[in-house]
Amino acid sequence: MDVAREVVRLLEEVENKNPLVHHITNFVTANDCANVVLALGGSPVMALDREEVEEMVSQASSLVINLGTLNPRTVQAIRLAGKKANERGIPVILDPVGVGATDFRAKTAQEIIRGLKLAVIRGNLSEIKVLAGLRARMRGVDAKEGRGGKVVAENLARTLGCVVVVTGVRDVISNGKLTIGVDNGHWMLARVTGTGCMLTSLIATFCGVTADYCLAAAAGTIAMGLAGERASQCLEGGGGPGTFRIKLLDHIYLLAKEKNVKGTCAYVI
Amino acid sequence: MDVAREVVRLLEEVENKNPLVHHITNFVTANDCANVVLALGGSPVMALDREEVEEMVSQASSLVINLGTLNPRTVQAIRLAGKKANERGIPVILDPVGVGATDFRAKTAQEIIRGLKLAVIRGNLSEIKVLAGLRARMRGVDAKEGRGGKVVAENLARTLGCVVVVTGVRDVISNGKLTIGVDNGHWMLARVTGTGCMLTSLIATFCGVTADYCLAAAAGTIAMGLAGERASQCLEGGGGPGTFRIKLLDHIYLLAKEKNVKGTCAYVI
Amino acid sequence: MDVAREVVRLLEEVENKNPLVHHITNFVTANDCANVVLALGGSPVMALDREEVEEMVSQASSLVINLGTLNPRTVQAIRLAGKKANERGIPVILDPVGVGATDFRAKTAQEIIRGLKLAVIRGNLSEIKVLAGLRARMRGVDAKEGRGGKVVAENLARTLGCVVVVTGVRDVISNGKLTIGVDNGHWMLARVTGTGCMLTSLIATFCGVTADYCLAAAAGTIAMGLAGERASQCLEGGGGPGTFRIKLLDHIYLLAKEKNVKGTCAYVI
Repeated sequence: MDVAREVVRLLEEVENKNPLVHHITNFVTANDCANVVLALGGSPVMALDREEVEEMVSQASSLVINLGTLNPRTVQAIRLAGKKANERGIPVILDPVGVGATDFRAKTAQEIIRGLKLAVIRGNLSEIKVLAGLRARMRGVDAKEGRGGKVVAENLARTLGCVVVVTGVRDVISNGKLTIGVDNGHWMLARVTGTGCMLTSLIATFCGVTADYCLAAAAGTIAMGLAGERASQCLEGGGGPGTFRIKLLDHIYLLAKEKNVKGTCAYVI
Repeated sequence: MDVAREVVRLLEEVENKNPLVHHITNFVTANDCANVVLALGGSPVMALDREEVEEMVSQASSLVINLGTLNPRTVQAIRLAGKKANERGIPVILDPVGVGATDFRAKTAQEIIRGLKLAVIRGNLSEIKVLAGLRARMRGVDAKEGRGGKVVAENLARTLGCVVVVTGVRDVISNGKLTIGVDNGHWMLARVTGTGCMLTSLIATFCGVTADYCLAAAAGTIAMGLAGERASQCLEGGGGPGTFRIKLLDHIYLLAKEKNVKGTCAYVI
Repeated sequence: MDVAREVVRLLEEVENKNPLVHHITNFVTANDCANVVLALGGSPVMALDREEVEEMVSQASSLVINLGTLNPRTVQAIRLAGKKANERGIPVILDPVGVGATDFRAKTAQEIIRGLKLAVIRGNLSEIKVLAGLRARMRGVDAKEGRGGKVVAENLARTLGCVVVVTGVRDVISNGKLTIGVDNGHWMLARVTGTGCMLTSLIATFCGVTADYCLAAAAGTIAMGLAGERASQCLEGGGGPGTFRIKLLDHIYLLAKEKNVKGTCAYVI
């Protein structure tokens, strides 16, 4: 499989189909998530009250469930929207933000995993290990690097029958049979809040235009990685995370516009 | 009427009066809304709980009601704040974000329209058509372009006795008698989240310093359009929506500071 | 005391310890707060539901309580998290955003002040005067400049037994015995939303690595002031608050990386 070529094809699909990506997400990074979806060529909508999520998701091409700044009312909305999305065959993408930090997030994540059919789960190694029952705790929402992403992703993907993305220095995407490693990215991505959430939104945008969620997840991961590398040029000129964050959004847009995926480092592993 | 000259006068008024603009708004674009009000010379405040909105709005020069990320508790706050604003003669500006996407937003918008005296309603053509009862549904929150903005704006303005702004390639502002077309703007504004919300906040800032809400709405629309055009220069140098969004804020500030409205394309139509 | 040298030492401590800064904060500026903590070398986490705040704060190095966009459910979370932080000896930093604007915020602030042991309170002169019972009202959330910051800070610090920071043209930091004046800063900081909240987050990050909260508060204030001065260079090249805000984040990061505190204007007063 020529992954880079497939990414170009998916970028064209997003451009043509303008998928509506419904987000039930946190208030910290919602603006950034909306902006990356627009940059890629999708149409974001944020709605998280039980009064309206079923109606909203029914119009959507995909649904993001992000557990940041969670509260019980939003959990109700997640249940309703997730069920409706499953009924309609709309792909559901889970970002288990900080799932190991509190019981409330862990229980909510477990309920989602058991009760819903998911297309993709995207988290850092700590978060995915918690979901897989391999680790009980984490501190806050940031990842500590570690090994074993491939095995953890593959096993959880097989158990749940969905695509699992473990982000890190090497990102791993697996559906349990096919596993792709992506070596694109830049360390500054970890110094900007919400880059994990943004990646999840990119993946959801691609999931809105193809039934191959493994490829969609790889495309999102590659797009974020390439944009991060390209944005990092600003750091040589005295820039920092502020400028980087702005250039990141620019480069997601330029990638979508020019479909230049040169530099893609993705392999079946 | 020399619209451009009037805009300069209103910019001076904002500078002198520093209007307090109370927002009951969504969490996705609240930061951008606050920043454009500050850039223009106003003072933003966000408060949306029923415990405090009446007290807060009583100090304000204008009130923004924005229906994004709506929930029932916020609807209660809208009722209380809107009533208080009406009692005090404080102008109320409605942004019916995604009003056609769900019944919950549509019902809330209808309740607002029937129960409150509004100064300005600002939406895209889809949203304004839904309010006017001309269209039942829309997908998500983004506009599809269309014709007929002038007629729709004029009719709704007459029906409700308020100013209606329909944004699009040509923006239309009408109070039912006077209708102004604004041809300023740039397509990139539609690729950045929250530019509609920001425009509403600019309009509300101007409404805080004049009783001529039609002119205030035109001034806000022109300011956003000119800033968008000026910000678009960054796109030639390899910029994208990230840089554009930052330059947009810069140019709203510079416009307010320098009162340079050269390039205004606004006409009574 | 060589304040600048102490700031360098604290920057090294943040780098080494990567403190987790738990925020119970408003949705308007949460993204900016998270990004400044990351830029400085800390790890931010936002969680504000009563279901999880006790567990989250137990892992944290410090707790920010910010009263923006407050609601009764968040007040419950503040109670729980604050009590738990006190039990564990985790420093609590209060930002009484707009405390004089509504009774709801004033009552909540009074309850916090009476019920919790605080490490630092950071506000503008209007806000601190309201807390000290010297002033009943303010309009919105923005400060009007005034005199008397030193006396007000010292008296409130003595009364409450905590550090009080009054920000203004000259920032004043006092623990009731030692009082430090900081003359760094730039007027553009007042034209960007959330710079007060961001400063509070920087202070909380430093409080996470030292028991000398007065010095931590001074270090945060100096860091913000220096970054503001350095960011202001963009204004000469045609920049405005958009670019300034981005460069502000860059310079907080660069300050933390290079530990260059040249230009510090801080004195025991």
